[in-house]
Amino acid sequence: MNILVGQSGGPTAAINSSLAGIISAAFDSSKIETVYGALHGIEGFLDDRVFNINNYFDFEKIELLKTTPGAFLKSCRYPLPEDLNDPIYPKIFEKLDMLWIGAFIYIGGNDSMTTVDRLSRYAKKIGHPCLFLGVPKTVDNDLPIIDHCPGYGSAAKYVATQVRNIGMDICAYKASSVTIVEIMGRHAGWLTASSILARKYKGDNPLYIYLPEVPFSIDRFFADIEDGLTKQDDLLICVSEGIRDKDGKFISEYNSAVDVDSFGHKYLKGCGIILEKLVKDKFKIKTRSIELSLPQRCAAECQSAVDIQEAFDCGVSAIKAVLDGENAKMVCINRISNTPYKVNYSLIDVTNTANKEKFVPANMILPSNNDVSEEFIDYCLPLIQGETKIKRENSLPTYLQIEC
Amino acid sequence: MNILVGQSGGPTAAINSSLAGIISAAFDSSKIETVYGALHGIEGFLDDRVFNINNYFDFEKIELLKTTPGAFLKSCRYPLPEDLNDPIYPKIFEKLDMLWIGAFIYIGGNDSMTTVDRLSRYAKKIGHPCLFLGVPKTVDNDLPIIDHCPGYGSAAKYVATQVRNIGMDICAYKASSVTIVEIMGRHAGWLTASSILARKYKGDNPLYIYLPEVPFSIDRFFADIEDGLTKQDDLLICVSEGIRDKDGKFISEYNSAVDVDSFGHKYLKGCGIILEKLVKDKFKIKTRSIELSLPQRCAAECQSAVDIQEAFDCGVSAIKAVLDGENAKMVCINRISNTPYKVNYSLIDVTNTANKEKFVPANMILPSNNDVSEEFIDYCLPLIQGETKIKRENSLPTYLQIEC
Repeated sequence: MNILVGQSGGPTAAINSSLAGIISAAFDSSKIETVYGALHGIEGFLDDRVFNINNYFDFEKIELLKTTPGAFLKSCRYPLPEDLNDPIYPKIFEKLDMLWIGAFIYIGGNDSMTTVDRLSRYAKKIGHPCLFLGVPKTVDNDLPIIDHCPGYGSAAKYVATQVRNIGMDICAYKASSVTIVEIMGRHAGWLTASSILARKYKGDNPLYIYLPEVPFSIDRFFADIEDGLTKQDDLLICVSEGIRDKDGKFISEYNSAVDVDSFGHKYLKGCGIILEKLVKDKFKIKTRSIELSLPQRCAAECQSAVDIQEAFDCGVSAIKAVLDGENAKMVCINRISNTPYKVNYSLIDVTNTANKEKFVPANMILPSNNDVSEEFIDYCLPLIQGETKIKRENSLPTYLQIEC
Repeated sequence: MNILVGQSGGPTAAINSSLAGIISAAFDSSKIETVYGALHGIEGFLDDRVFNINNYFDFEKIELLKTTPGAFLKSCRYPLPEDLNDPIYPKIFEKLDMLWIGAFIYIGGNDSMTTVDRLSRYAKKIGHPCLFLGVPKTVDNDLPIIDHCPGYGSAAKYVATQVRNIGMDICAYKASSVTIVEIMGRHAGWLTASSILARKYKGDNPLYIYLPEVPFSIDRFFADIEDGLTKQDDLLICVSEGIRDKDGKFISEYNSAVDVDSFGHKYLKGCGIILEKLVKDKFKIKTRSIELSLPQRCAAECQSAVDIQEAFDCGVSAIKAVLDGENAKMVCINRISNTPYKVNYSLIDVTNTANKEKFVPANMILPSNNDVSEEFIDYCLPLIQGETKIKRENSLPTYLQIEC
């Protein structure tokens, strides 16, 4: 049997470790002949952009792939139509047949699981034997059912590390200051919540943490800052990029009417820079905003060893599922114990994950809506443990990359 | 003899290693009794904010201090008046005498060296025996005479690492994209130039690098991008925050007239976000800007071992200078060989460094003004070598910090 594997959605620091797990387990199986990579996921596959993984990989490259950020096989955002009568489906299956593909494994988030779901339903409809499996990936950690997503632990570790670093920097001067750190997560606040791990003791920075799961009020925000400034000189505040007010309006959309250039084009700004300005105007103190931006999902030097290993194991589990003849499933991580931290892997119906989001639950957010709880720390801390050993040349990280 | 030490200006990831060198060498000398730290530099000293270093530090704490980012003794921006008849001078010397201070060592950049210069000139004027010495520090690397500044190597390593990481992320999708990374350096482009170390081969990202030393032209920038997009799909471009046009106007000030809110207040934005908008409007392709921001100077996990050691050695050299009775000097790093990389330390008259800036020289900038040369790589690469071992608890970095 031949296997096709693809990556889809936003890259993470761990998505390639899942690919490494798939390749490693496939190479270990006598039942799997050739592993093909779909370059740019299902979108590239439709253009016959296929990469022969057997010809390229050896043990050393698989090892290097584990700590390589970005999507090694390149990615796409290419939703398949809901209508299974769409001509794209027979086209895809014709291409699968041409390469004798017996199983397709897609590494991705919510949208990618929808792709797996639709392809498997089309296969069932036409009685095609190809298996379709999903391997979870997202820094947002918003896939349902699964305890946590590969990619999240490393991103959370980057956030906690930088927030702690920034906290060391901002307290240098005598004058009071407010620093607002904007963190990824448009709908789910998992990544923003991880900033609490930077806090060393009660009252340490980050003093406030605002998630998109609960309404954000500017007045309440000002009151928090006013209170915070009575306790300490330098406030570090973490906000999710997706915070919204009680009417559901994104804070990043505030002031958009005035924020246009001479051609009438709107500037696209994050909520951090908007809050920075509002705080500066209100409190007349030194205020800055920092958007952690892309390094959140690609800074290999902050990888969590637990995350990278789990991502790898998810890939291995997908190959095991293929060999077991499983279909229309996503690999799931289950936390079976927290002290000591221990997980196992299972399969869940991909239909149950497709296009569904998991939010930070109420018990992990303090009633004051400006902080997260001990329950969250217990949940998140095990996921950032351990460092990976990244390969270096001239003291800079070296990664695996194909030209395409 | 008692010693007073202070830190001044923006913190770096290496400034505390210089302090560790000073403390370590002072503890080793039988001639030095008590080492005092001026909290918040000369500003805090005027308020009697003095910290007894002997009582606090042991070997373990000195070791931890070496890899701790931020200014351990807190910092200030507090220029002393040029007029040596100002009453602030007798006030400072009265306080020095009260603690029997025989030498004051100030760790800082250009402005701090001006402070050292003025204090030593005042001492000479009144015939006071206190010695004044400077230890260089700045991520901007813009102090004159010295081969390079402690703090620069670690910041350069952070920049090169993140630019390489971001380069791995941005090439995931099929659609073309432009990513603009904004790097610290308002007048000198040393830190922005270090982004070239992320380039693995000719034509690799970052494709273009723009420094403040040469005029920036939007038209030329557009032409560069147009040309770049014929060669590759995803352009990564590095710009210094301080790029200016031929008339000396900062790009970050472009569009400021329209960029006001309903109260008429100006938004303060970086040049990255302005260029992002201009590129988006012109090329109608996916464009994003990333400001590397504070982590450039506080990300301990990207410290250069060479930098941290040299910073430490500069501190040791300052104590040696004190014991030799030197006055009005700054510790200087001299590169005596590049292959193998080797430095020694000397002293230079602080007058020659005070308020002077060193810019990236013409031979390190390509005539096209959009890239840096091999000469720069030869200069910079030795400075980022080696990793430090940062102490961790729960897999997050732990640092040394005093409550004050």
